[in-house]
Amino acid sequence: MADIATRELRQPIDIAEYLFRRLREVGIRSVHGVPGDYNLTALDYLPNCGLHWVGNCNELNAGYAADGYARVNGIAALVTTFGVGELSAINAIAGAYSEYVPIVHIVGQPHTRSQKDGMLLHHTLGNGNYNVFAGMYAGISTTMARLDETYDAATLIDNAIRECWIRSRPVYITLPTDMVTRKIEGERLKTPIDLSSPPNDPEKEDYVVDVVLKYLHAAKRPVILVDACAIRHRVLEEVHDLVEASGLPTFVAPMGKGAVNEAHKFYGGVYAGTGSNPGVRDQVESSDLILSIGAIKSDFNTAGFSYHTGQLNTIDFHSTYVRVRYSEYPEINMKGVLRKVIQGMGSIKSNPVHHISNQLSEQEQGSREQKITHAWLWPTFGQWLQENDVVITETGTANFGIWDTRFPSGVTAISQVLWGSIGYSVGACQGAALAAKEQGNRRTVLWVGDGSLQLTVQELSPMIRNNLNPIIFVICNEGYTIERFIHGWDASYNDIQTWDHQGLPVAFGATDKYKGYKVTTRDELTKLFANQDFCSAPFLQLVEVHMPREDAPAALRITAEAAASRNK
Amino acid sequence: MADIATRELRQPIDIAEYLFRRLREVGIRSVHGVPGDYNLTALDYLPNCGLHWVGNCNELNAGYAADGYARVNGIAALVTTFGVGELSAINAIAGAYSEYVPIVHIVGQPHTRSQKDGMLLHHTLGNGNYNVFAGMYAGISTTMARLDETYDAATLIDNAIRECWIRSRPVYITLPTDMVTRKIEGERLKTPIDLSSPPNDPEKEDYVVDVVLKYLHAAKRPVILVDACAIRHRVLEEVHDLVEASGLPTFVAPMGKGAVNEAHKFYGGVYAGTGSNPGVRDQVESSDLILSIGAIKSDFNTAGFSYHTGQLNTIDFHSTYVRVRYSEYPEINMKGVLRKVIQGMGSIKSNPVHHISNQLSEQEQGSREQKITHAWLWPTFGQWLQENDVVITETGTANFGIWDTRFPSGVTAISQVLWGSIGYSVGACQGAALAAKEQGNRRTVLWVGDGSLQLTVQELSPMIRNNLNPIIFVICNEGYTIERFIHGWDASYNDIQTWDHQGLPVAFGATDKYKGYKVTTRDELTKLFANQDFCSAPFLQLVEVHMPREDAPAALRITAEAAASRNK
Repeated sequence: MADIATRELRQPIDIAEYLFRRLREVGIRSVHGVPGDYNLTALDYLPNCGLHWVGNCNELNAGYAADGYARVNGIAALVTTFGVGELSAINAIAGAYSEYVPIVHIVGQPHTRSQKDGMLLHHTLGNGNYNVFAGMYAGISTTMARLDETYDAATLIDNAIRECWIRSRPVYITLPTDMVTRKIEGERLKTPIDLSSPPNDPEKEDYVVDVVLKYLHAAKRPVILVDACAIRHRVLEEVHDLVEASGLPTFVAPMGKGAVNEAHKFYGGVYAGTGSNPGVRDQVESSDLILSIGAIKSDFNTAGFSYHTGQLNTIDFHSTYVRVRYSEYPEINMKGVLRKVIQGMGSIKSNPVHHISNQLSEQEQGSREQKITHAWLWPTFGQWLQENDVVITETGTANFGIWDTRFPSGVTAISQVLWGSIGYSVGACQGAALAAKEQGNRRTVLWVGDGSLQLTVQELSPMIRNNLNPIIFVICNEGYTIERFIHGWDASYNDIQTWDHQGLPVAFGATDKYKGYKVTTRDELTKLFANQDFCSAPFLQLVEVHMPREDAPAALRITAEAAASRNK
Repeated sequence: MADIATRELRQPIDIAEYLFRRLREVGIRSVHGVPGDYNLTALDYLPNCGLHWVGNCNELNAGYAADGYARVNGIAALVTTFGVGELSAINAIAGAYSEYVPIVHIVGQPHTRSQKDGMLLHHTLGNGNYNVFAGMYAGISTTMARLDETYDAATLIDNAIRECWIRSRPVYITLPTDMVTRKIEGERLKTPIDLSSPPNDPEKEDYVVDVVLKYLHAAKRPVILVDACAIRHRVLEEVHDLVEASGLPTFVAPMGKGAVNEAHKFYGGVYAGTGSNPGVRDQVESSDLILSIGAIKSDFNTAGFSYHTGQLNTIDFHSTYVRVRYSEYPEINMKGVLRKVIQGMGSIKSNPVHHISNQLSEQEQGSREQKITHAWLWPTFGQWLQENDVVITETGTANFGIWDTRFPSGVTAISQVLWGSIGYSVGACQGAALAAKEQGNRRTVLWVGDGSLQLTVQELSPMIRNNLNPIIFVICNEGYTIERFIHGWDASYNDIQTWDHQGLPVAFGATDKYKGYKVTTRDELTKLFANQDFCSAPFLQLVEVHMPREDAPAALRITAEAAASRNK
């Protein structure tokens, strides 16, 4: 049977090769994952398909790394093995689903015959049911492609990759060991996968654009507010053109950090209700029309649901619908609407924006304090950043502190504000640093707490193995600070074991291509920031930044209080 | 409402306190897990309930540690937080489900009102669905107890703990933040949870016993074969008495290692088809009646399904059924049946057993080879072991090598042969060492490969923090050896980054209470085994054992070949 079918193929190609060539076609250069006996034969195909194997230490880290890689590169791939491997990665994929990050997750499975026979193989529950783990993934994957037959394998692969890109969410592809080498039609590869979004219904689109323009022209103090889904659903070019064409004061939600050029004269800062940058709240909340692009109004993105904006003053743009005040327009993508709004806008009223900068407050400038506090740190860090840096911040103090850093242009910001899985940033840093290197050596900078680092610390090892050069700042403040602010200020469960952070990369095999630092004062950090060798990021560098245990960014205090009261 | 209900309670007690007092009652002394904002208030109750908080570095490790703790202690508890925490632990819980390990998994959840309102909180998928993660756990939990109301909370808790014990599998308990402090009736605590198995139907039990005895008396060369479920379903006392009363040659499957006293004169070694100890295969496969107790005939437990035993010559004893040749007797527990078989057995034919020992083969004894090979290592290790040691082996070379180690009496063996998640053993070692310490300082010994260690290495940190003193042998053979034997002998994906293993505990904060070793020759290891300070395990010790990259235990070679051919 197989032979007859193969003879009918014009350009027979193994399924694994077909799959990996498609990954390369859509822009993937490196594949994350951990080898396992059900995926080994597939991994053999990677080099010939122009794909680099990262070789992570474990699957959760690999999943986080794929997430970070996707946020810089546009899309990522992850390979795990059946059962044990895929389940270890499930938290990372749930996070990617939650935060709209496109990851093609390929799971190496036992032979299709073993599955049909319900064999009692290792990595099973011992009950002959081979569908349990796929079932767990169904709720966090935008498409499930099970490659059990040759006749539809290419279609399933193409469809999964397309859905991954368009929905900007993970997809799940199973690849049984026997399917790896099965032949399918390779001629399909001559036609690239269509990654364009389906166009909006033109009549509907025009209707929505007219409604938007009507309110925009009537507004006296309109503003633009950009959030995560503007990044994930790839409308940053439209956002940029909208800002330029309208001249409107432009703000970002925390999850939208990096979406707009923060050095731009129309940029006004971070809006997050009571956790906003100074002066921002007044400008946004007094606006009579907020063009809200790609909002995700979660608790940590809004400083505990502290928005004081009315739906009557809001137009929400999303990838699948637009909402003008209370009128919903389903099944319409913001991309086309925004483009036409820009074209049809003409002249509109705009007000000057109160510009936000990295200048320290007068109080901080005059201070002789040497302790590194959050109020001092984050604007100072902003002064040091360079254009096109990639900045990763961990859930916890760093994710709130970064609200007070104004980025130079071109900075990509990575954080996991909605899913908020601690440890994420270390894995994400590996993937982001790799993608940044593939893009021509952009600098990658990580801020992680000493508590969060412990979850995923071995991801330093693949950074070393893959010759990556991130600058890793470890905030040493003796434990889970964000949790202390929510509950258990002095509770021992919020303490951690004290580690020798500078020694970690050495234990993980870093030799001459590594340097560790320890800073405890403002002067020391200022001096390090001025060190050109350090700034040039020649190899992996890790900086212990010792900060007071009781200190936290103001926005974290506000958000933690809201969380604590909601828990009661 | 709550106040009225509270006034009607005779001994009001907070739900968290009720739950934790029940855990203590069934024998749990330490609780594993990671703090998270949805479980913090619950953790406050631990100290007053006589429970120690371990404070793991991440949830997967915590789950593995709980598994190891349960295998030594009888049962364990794990606390995670909603979404991110529970999903990180899911691989460990799936493993515990697969291998029949009782873990009470408590998940701290958002306030019941937030859940009902579908709030857009952190740690959610952003879709208002708070049931997704519980749904993932349904297939790997023997009972789901969702504590959303006070009226049935105590019943759900008691039932979950009872099911956990009796089915010897994980249960899943959700504890929303507002339920932690809600009051329920504390008087129930005066009546301990009934952990006894439901008795068999006496008539049915007698019937089965008669059938078993009929075949047993007719058999000429009966043998006993003990496997994992004899341990997990707690019939080791019956097994012991059966061996004593019958005098039958007794063998174990790999997953049954440690189930019987291997120093006993009737003990004959490990049976695993073509991977059996020398001489064992003949004795078992020529038997005309195998009393098979608690078998799990998975691929890695049978050296690739290489049993050559017939069902016509087999009686299978299980926790939920007994099978005599082809006759199945469902809904009957082996415990009662075995007890009555022992009582009614009288005199039966028994044959002398070919005793297995830790003596090296003559070839090895005469050898001047200094390389540490598997053939030399595992019997030598057996000579060094002490009574009542706890021995953990990792999936990979160690899990197969240990087949060639004959244990002194009282040894508990821990491995994950069916689920086979690499990295498991490091977490399990922490939990096992803690339980062993609580039992009065039994020694805990771990054998892990350099590849597997990388997945879960930070679990060394809680070992140090909790003053545990395991002896950790790291097999340094440059990567994933078991995978090389299955596929990709020289493939770079089976290589790993080289670590400074001895430096790891130092980086994780070990100071004076730690010692590292490196051995590269047989003489060095022999000398270390003779070192009384080392043997007394005064604190954490880590030994790098350098072994040839190309070497593996014979049983691994056989099993890997079978796996490779099944993958094709």
